[in-house]
Amino acid sequence: MFNIAVAQSGGPTAAINASLTGVFNGAEQEAQVDEIYGAENGIEGIINDRLLNLRSILMDEHDKQLLMTTPSTILGSCRFKLKDWHEDDSDYRKIAETFSRHNIRAFFYIGGNDSMDTVMKLHSYFTEKGIDIKVVGVPKTIDNDVTETDHTPGFGSAAKYVAATLQEIIRDSRVYSIPSVTIVEIMGRDAGWLAASSCVLRANGEPAPHLIYLPEGEFSPEKYLNDVKQAQLRYKAVIVAISEGVSAGNGVSSEIVDAFGHKYLSGIGKWLEEYTKDHIGCKVRSIELNVMQRCSSHIASLTDLLEAERIGREAVKSALVYGASGVMMCFHRLSNNPYRVEITTADITKIANQEKKFPREWINQEGNNVTVDALNYFLPLIQGEPKLEYRNGIPIHFRLDQ
Amino acid sequence: MFNIAVAQSGGPTAAINASLTGVFNGAEQEAQVDEIYGAENGIEGIINDRLLNLRSILMDEHDKQLLMTTPSTILGSCRFKLKDWHEDDSDYRKIAETFSRHNIRAFFYIGGNDSMDTVMKLHSYFTEKGIDIKVVGVPKTIDNDVTETDHTPGFGSAAKYVAATLQEIIRDSRVYSIPSVTIVEIMGRDAGWLAASSCVLRANGEPAPHLIYLPEGEFSPEKYLNDVKQAQLRYKAVIVAISEGVSAGNGVSSEIVDAFGHKYLSGIGKWLEEYTKDHIGCKVRSIELNVMQRCSSHIASLTDLLEAERIGREAVKSALVYGASGVMMCFHRLSNNPYRVEITTADITKIANQEKKFPREWINQEGNNVTVDALNYFLPLIQGEPKLEYRNGIPIHFRLDQ
Repeated sequence: MFNIAVAQSGGPTAAINASLTGVFNGAEQEAQVDEIYGAENGIEGIINDRLLNLRSILMDEHDKQLLMTTPSTILGSCRFKLKDWHEDDSDYRKIAETFSRHNIRAFFYIGGNDSMDTVMKLHSYFTEKGIDIKVVGVPKTIDNDVTETDHTPGFGSAAKYVAATLQEIIRDSRVYSIPSVTIVEIMGRDAGWLAASSCVLRANGEPAPHLIYLPEGEFSPEKYLNDVKQAQLRYKAVIVAISEGVSAGNGVSSEIVDAFGHKYLSGIGKWLEEYTKDHIGCKVRSIELNVMQRCSSHIASLTDLLEAERIGREAVKSALVYGASGVMMCFHRLSNNPYRVEITTADITKIANQEKKFPREWINQEGNNVTVDALNYFLPLIQGEPKLEYRNGIPIHFRLDQ
Repeated sequence: MFNIAVAQSGGPTAAINASLTGVFNGAEQEAQVDEIYGAENGIEGIINDRLLNLRSILMDEHDKQLLMTTPSTILGSCRFKLKDWHEDDSDYRKIAETFSRHNIRAFFYIGGNDSMDTVMKLHSYFTEKGIDIKVVGVPKTIDNDVTETDHTPGFGSAAKYVAATLQEIIRDSRVYSIPSVTIVEIMGRDAGWLAASSCVLRANGEPAPHLIYLPEGEFSPEKYLNDVKQAQLRYKAVIVAISEGVSAGNGVSSEIVDAFGHKYLSGIGKWLEEYTKDHIGCKVRSIELNVMQRCSSHIASLTDLLEAERIGREAVKSALVYGASGVMMCFHRLSNNPYRVEITTADITKIANQEKKFPREWINQEGNNVTVDALNYFLPLIQGEPKLEYRNGIPIHFRLDQ
């Protein structure tokens, strides 16, 4: 008998807790696993020996069901980059001590690109030192920018939220008889996946968003103005979806000075709002979907949550049954329609600190929308709605503390 | 046999189309009603004779079911104030002509305080001129600031969205181990009802939002800082809900100058974010819930939608069966638990251009939260979830055009 540990890292999503549930479920199925520990605040909780015994927290199926549909990370998260252990191994030694102290033989780290750096370094350290502890990464990020995997848990729920919300904003934008432009800024630092996913509304015959701009395309304010004017010939209320990672380009400043004398850069959405007002002069509004994109579990994708649970469960099997370590769990898509995926593993060195961009060939020729291939890629990921439990009219969240 | 007309006015909500459905259902039940017309863009559609025949649009129960759960106004809206007809009756004459041309004997106007001004003036004009056309107001607004009625359709759904979203933001704000302040700015120009409604999370044991500020209370930045510091003694992630109508007070400017040289006032949330950073120095974030508050039908309150339909239906009955005119339909609450309301009418002159503030006695002594009486008032309004129809993973909206 031995124990295992799991931790969550990076920005929140609506599906990380589902992957945590999956790791727990996977470990429960392995007879040789005794305790299942959750570390608080990612790898920091391992370094500082702050572990929770998950068997005493997830008492029954109902607890697990609630956890599946609770957004963000019940264990907390961190933004912590391990140093190169050849230069400074102090944190590595603390980690090894924590694992040794609690007889932990496998560690599962749920996170994105940066977190996979931790998996890679820990695996390298343990291998070098001859310490037999399996380290397996479980992907998550709403940005969908992790390499080797078809997509990442958390992305489908974010995409479903963006689509449902954008559809409502479209309805809202059409009420008055005057022409208008509504600009919706969507998360995704350097990769445009989430903004691109707003194209799914097309599947239901919705022509909006009429324009979609991604960091992977070229963007120029002049071209944008022309695109909007063209769209205005057909649509009274023009809807623009733009990835936060799009830059307004050379020589264009989005600097703002507030009443406190603080200078900061506005988001591209706010910048475009002012730019559009200046150059077109109609009613213009910009909307930031903000953190709601990453935590709106009340409109999560059931496909996403079930896949997140499954990939967490498979991670445990791959480590404990097949002896995998230094890998990240991946989805490999077999077909779009019917949608079928299998779960595989990939060498962590191919993933850590890499970034998967939205394919250039899925951007249309005009650089202001995406192709039907993109639509077919996105659609399966947003299917299905989890059954939520409500109390007093509000979804119940699984909470550890206040 | 005669015809009736209905129009929608003011800002969108998730429940206006439910009231439209209710007017339609009510008219269908009256044997003397032939056609049921919907005017485009509120009273402007009556003035300009732009009418849609709703019987040819709402063909069956399925259409009506979809319309019930479609946000915003399918007929479009307007912000149009009729002139005093003693001074200029040109629009009134056009309205009377449209009604006469189409044999319309009753007009139902779904809107807020400003729209009730139209109901009042039209009723006064028709009475004076001896024209027998009933004019009845049907309330709607997410602001809940209409007098004479216990609450307004649209408010409950907005409150449910705010509560569900705030709960998710609370989860999101708690992931890192550092202290933080999250400020959520909530709609409500001069009345704090919607921001106050965020207290409903308390019913599920959630202590956040820890601080709630309303325009009906006094607000000073110094007092706010002290409140936050007190909250930080107990909570790592402090959550502040603030109504957009709260003013930062005398001598405080929230002026922003952007890269285009435009000057504008930031929202109170953004202003407080910078103020908090300056004076406390921890991680601070402000979030605007923006138009999503008024159009998020995917998390509408079933109670709200059913009441919105019912009050629209009753409006038709009150005009056609009881001969009411120059009135607005009202909810009169009989009890909180069990929740029971009856529908009444009130003289439109008591409502038009008035505003119902959040009760001062429901604000706590410290002026930074609300009382249990407020909680008991809000809770019934957010109960229940409509069954939504999804296609391709996205709720289906009822659409007239693109």
